[in-house]
Amino acid sequence: MASNGVCEAAASCRILCPKSARDLLDSVDVFLFDCDGVIWKGDQLIDGVPAALQVLRSMGKNLAFVTNNSTKSRKQYVDKFLGLGLSISEEEIFSSSFAAAMFLKMNNFPRDKKVYAVGEDGILEEMALAGFTCLGGTKDGGKQIEFKTNFKFEHDENVGAVVVGLDKYINYYKIQYATLCIRENPGCLFIATNCDAVGNLTDLQEWPGAGSMVGAICGSTQSEPIVVGKPSPFLMNFLRERFRIPTSRMCMVGDRLDTDILFGLNAGCKTLLVLSGVTTLPALQDPANNIHPDYYTNTVSDIINSLAI
Amino acid sequence: MASNGVCEAAASCRILCPKSARDLLDSVDVFLFDCDGVIWKGDQLIDGVPAALQVLRSMGKNLAFVTNNSTKSRKQYVDKFLGLGLSISEEEIFSSSFAAAMFLKMNNFPRDKKVYAVGEDGILEEMALAGFTCLGGTKDGGKQIEFKTNFKFEHDENVGAVVVGLDKYINYYKIQYATLCIRENPGCLFIATNCDAVGNLTDLQEWPGAGSMVGAICGSTQSEPIVVGKPSPFLMNFLRERFRIPTSRMCMVGDRLDTDILFGLNAGCKTLLVLSGVTTLPALQDPANNIHPDYYTNTVSDIINSLAI
Repeated sequence: MASNGVCEAAASCRILCPKSARDLLDSVDVFLFDCDGVIWKGDQLIDGVPAALQVLRSMGKNLAFVTNNSTKSRKQYVDKFLGLGLSISEEEIFSSSFAAAMFLKMNNFPRDKKVYAVGEDGILEEMALAGFTCLGGTKDGGKQIEFKTNFKFEHDENVGAVVVGLDKYINYYKIQYATLCIRENPGCLFIATNCDAVGNLTDLQEWPGAGSMVGAICGSTQSEPIVVGKPSPFLMNFLRERFRIPTSRMCMVGDRLDTDILFGLNAGCKTLLVLSGVTTLPALQDPANNIHPDYYTNTVSDIINSLAI
Repeated sequence: MASNGVCEAAASCRILCPKSARDLLDSVDVFLFDCDGVIWKGDQLIDGVPAALQVLRSMGKNLAFVTNNSTKSRKQYVDKFLGLGLSISEEEIFSSSFAAAMFLKMNNFPRDKKVYAVGEDGILEEMALAGFTCLGGTKDGGKQIEFKTNFKFEHDENVGAVVVGLDKYINYYKIQYATLCIRENPGCLFIATNCDAVGNLTDLQEWPGAGSMVGAICGSTQSEPIVVGKPSPFLMNFLRERFRIPTSRMCMVGDRLDTDILFGLNAGCKTLLVLSGVTTLPALQDPANNIHPDYYTNTVSDIINSLAI
């Protein structure tokens, strides 16, 4: 661990030691940060983050916040950052809800078709900003079904895409709506913002993530979704276009092996696992784990701590 | 189809023609019937069922009703049959909720451990009848979570099994409860009553089945369940013990290829697909389908229609 100050033989060293941190700073122009477990945990900012981001900016680094949490729109993320004392621009935020809207836009999703969301405000707001009509989401959160003889559940035949993300208000109504669209509307897309099993919705424990809602719709439709968030290549291609910098000069900083680190590795980015989120050191070092970041360390602040030495 | 009266060359004939129906009646002592799509559709009895069951009984055949629908207990099924004018005994009913309780009993599930149910009354009642303490289910149907700083969702550490079945009142509370038990209680079992994608909850359309709720819990726990309903061998072993008749003298009659017919085929039963439920003739004859029943026909009544010829 960085905290014990030991850097083993360079060839096998995966700990972010002062030397490797300086190498990283020299070779990277864009730092891509996951948010939950990296910048904050629930509503708690992780120690040292504001200073680290400030130093990186002062060194001319570009920052991007790449989160699979689809419950917020980019605007809501700006507010969340601000509430924690961090000033971030909307253009620096790449959420999976935004990715879903961009996926539809880049694939020329017809304007006369609608989107059905199993998810929260983030998806609805990003769809509206991209000019798409979006049904479901929070609007269907309280809906119940009364099962009566001859009752037929009606759905909109103009829904051409179902977008599924984390939904704390998941219910049978939404599952049936999404299922009918995917099974009965010809060509209807099934898009998952991401498939994270769990996430730190609060700072004390983990909660079911979008993987749970996606699993529910896979189970009823026997279909597999198009994933637009991490670790899918869609979001990385989008970032590459945005920054116009080779991925070898980007570093993905995250707390999850199967989303963040895989996302970076697949694209040829440098990768840094921080242990401030869901992944523990034993999980990283488990022989069953086959996702190996370039470096690991405790928290984001370790990236700049080397500068003080 | 039986209705067009054509029986093709015997070797390739899979339609239940009068001759094959008579052969079936001669060679089978126990008829295992699925319910939804076979006996009824939603709240509508399928034509000719009462007469067919009566004739089978008069011929000395044993009948068993083997359903993956876990929302009802055996007692509730007796009431449903009665409401449709059919007198069936509780001992003739083998529901997946009952199978879940029997699985725990036969595996000596400790009496001081509890069961958490993502499901409806059927699971709760069968667990209580088997002497197990069962939490969740309908009791947690209306529960919501208020996300506050320092909020910790508490779960019972004595839950030793999570049983997941069809749950029309699925919510985030239950998903989190089940997820915490499976992820954090050492040795906690994850049992699925079944994994049916959809079912005829009403007579006009299909609705998400237990596969959806099981998918949600798989998605958040990244675990695979033990399945006790069709097509798993557990329920068949139980039926074999109960009737003490070789499976070659049993016939599974169902409307689903991937549960009913597979269940029968795996055990060496004779199998009869009825087209009165979810499977269409094109789906049966699709080259991609690799589950082939011994026979298929329109409805259960075709089994005894041959006797009148």
